[in-house]
Amino acid sequence: MTAVRLAFTPGEPAGIGIDLAVMLAQNPPDCGLVCIADPDVLLARARDLGLPLTIHAFDGKRPAPREAGALQVAAVHVAEAVVPGALQPRNAAYVLETLRIAADGCLAGTFDGLVTGPVQKSVINDAGVPFSGHTEFFCERSGVGHVVMMLVAGGLRVALVTTHLPLRDVAGQVTSEAVRRTVRTVHGCLQSDWGIERPRILVAGLNPHAGEGGHLGREEIEVIGPVLAELRGEGMALEGPLPADTLFTPRQLQGADAVVAMYHDQGLPVLKHAGFGRAVNVTLGLPFVRTSVDHGTALDLAGTGRADAGSLSEALQLARELAARRRAPDAATGG
Amino acid sequence: MTAVRLAFTPGEPAGIGIDLAVMLAQNPPDCGLVCIADPDVLLARARDLGLPLTIHAFDGKRPAPREAGALQVAAVHVAEAVVPGALQPRNAAYVLETLRIAADGCLAGTFDGLVTGPVQKSVINDAGVPFSGHTEFFCERSGVGHVVMMLVAGGLRVALVTTHLPLRDVAGQVTSEAVRRTVRTVHGCLQSDWGIERPRILVAGLNPHAGEGGHLGREEIEVIGPVLAELRGEGMALEGPLPADTLFTPRQLQGADAVVAMYHDQGLPVLKHAGFGRAVNVTLGLPFVRTSVDHGTALDLAGTGRADAGSLSEALQLARELAARRRAPDAATGG
Repeated sequence: MTAVRLAFTPGEPAGIGIDLAVMLAQNPPDCGLVCIADPDVLLARARDLGLPLTIHAFDGKRPAPREAGALQVAAVHVAEAVVPGALQPRNAAYVLETLRIAADGCLAGTFDGLVTGPVQKSVINDAGVPFSGHTEFFCERSGVGHVVMMLVAGGLRVALVTTHLPLRDVAGQVTSEAVRRTVRTVHGCLQSDWGIERPRILVAGLNPHAGEGGHLGREEIEVIGPVLAELRGEGMALEGPLPADTLFTPRQLQGADAVVAMYHDQGLPVLKHAGFGRAVNVTLGLPFVRTSVDHGTALDLAGTGRADAGSLSEALQLARELAARRRAPDAATGG
Repeated sequence: MTAVRLAFTPGEPAGIGIDLAVMLAQNPPDCGLVCIADPDVLLARARDLGLPLTIHAFDGKRPAPREAGALQVAAVHVAEAVVPGALQPRNAAYVLETLRIAADGCLAGTFDGLVTGPVQKSVINDAGVPFSGHTEFFCERSGVGHVVMMLVAGGLRVALVTTHLPLRDVAGQVTSEAVRRTVRTVHGCLQSDWGIERPRILVAGLNPHAGEGGHLGREEIEVIGPVLAELRGEGMALEGPLPADTLFTPRQLQGADAVVAMYHDQGLPVLKHAGFGRAVNVTLGLPFVRTSVDHGTALDLAGTGRADAGSLSEALQLARELAARRRAPDAATGG
């Protein structure tokens, strides 16, 4: 069996993504890995951190595992010298180019999956480029209309029906179609990527106490409940709509393969409480595996040696597992 | 020092509140306790559970601690025989009468505080009595206009700006006045009832990422932020508005005395995930101490011996601590 081949984009060059790439080289994962970044920026940061780094240029072919202290790099060059912690709009095009190369490499089959480090949206926007995030970028590049954001920490997996929008707009966006396609995507990916034959999914209500029989809102009765009934009719093992504050109790979570929450702050506080430092963001529904660290650019920590590589390590490990199962689905069932 | 005197209302007689009272008698707390309920219902349930029970009629004076297996009871009589698990609207008046006696006893100084078991709102409403919950009942009985719901589990305390309303109405209810009075009440009670001289309070934003600088909603900029600035000007140690999903990480929670969340499902899932079975509901802002179990009537468990007294035990313990501090504030600072 050929080793899985992953791409890693460190993202914003003034942030800790570069530090993480250097740290990663010291303790390389057990798979093929290509870092898409500026080699000179990596070498300079390695010096800042007092860590050894040897760079091997990626030849465009299949990446192979490398020895400790070495990194295989597909070179993209920054426009302006990078100072750790100092954002530079003139390097925004560099960041986008690394993402483009990574996505195209995945689509072409050069890579089996992609792990992304943190980008700084604001500096890309300041450079005059409309950019609302990695996920949207990869959707567009792949020609995919709908993906699902799922966070994973340890055994807990939480997917969201709505993501980054003001709370006052959430109820209006929790439509039958949004719930249906989110649950379908989660269910399908748990089967294909996690190898779980019959996933058991807990679905939250929108309102407190899941609407308490209509007294605290009717979306459970009119929207979420009917969609779940329909999908159960297709054979899915779904529970809900459940009150969010009982859904997340350890007893309820036992035996569940994933949670579908209706919105960001209903689903993510528990996950990050239980799993901070280990949380990984996964995009479901793309034609390739994509995981991401669950932290920002941490500009104040760049170059200091105080960045924590825990989330990156988990993101790589998960991408490797999911990609391996996509390559050899029969080898890994029962997830 | 005289022992603290607490009242306990088991609530719905067909539910597990009666079981919990019988269980409590087996292992009485180290304080004065009067159970306000029907003695015959208690004795019958003790027989169902195979537990000894001796009832001492409360004489209206100061309750004293009792021996194991005994319970001091202020008698209120049900209208209809009670069958565990079977709701009976004709007993709704009984339930309300127990609450009235408890509240009036607290207001008169007979009791230092009150612990409530679960009631079944629907059966009270079915009996034609408008009743929206314990909290509202006690507010009205005490002539208090505004209270705050706080849940406590272990060292985590989460108070809510809004409580039981549909999610689509939340943003409209998060007003400057609502945030201000909630934070003030929490701050004042942490000082007076918990004896924390300078409480450190984390306040969540309303929107994901606390609005991300206005990109995901403006309530942090226009409502929450200005109120927190104003209250900091009065000397309060407040942090926020913070993104809910980072606020609840263990690192952020370290050293915080309480969290103020904007709404139910933003604040309570983490608390119940971390502390289920130990969570206690506290009402802040009443003229007396009031805590409550954090579970429902569990009709299917009534009389079976499978009820879990963990939440009641925690609720009693907390009521005792808070009431002791109200009686002798100097004896307990720095909590």
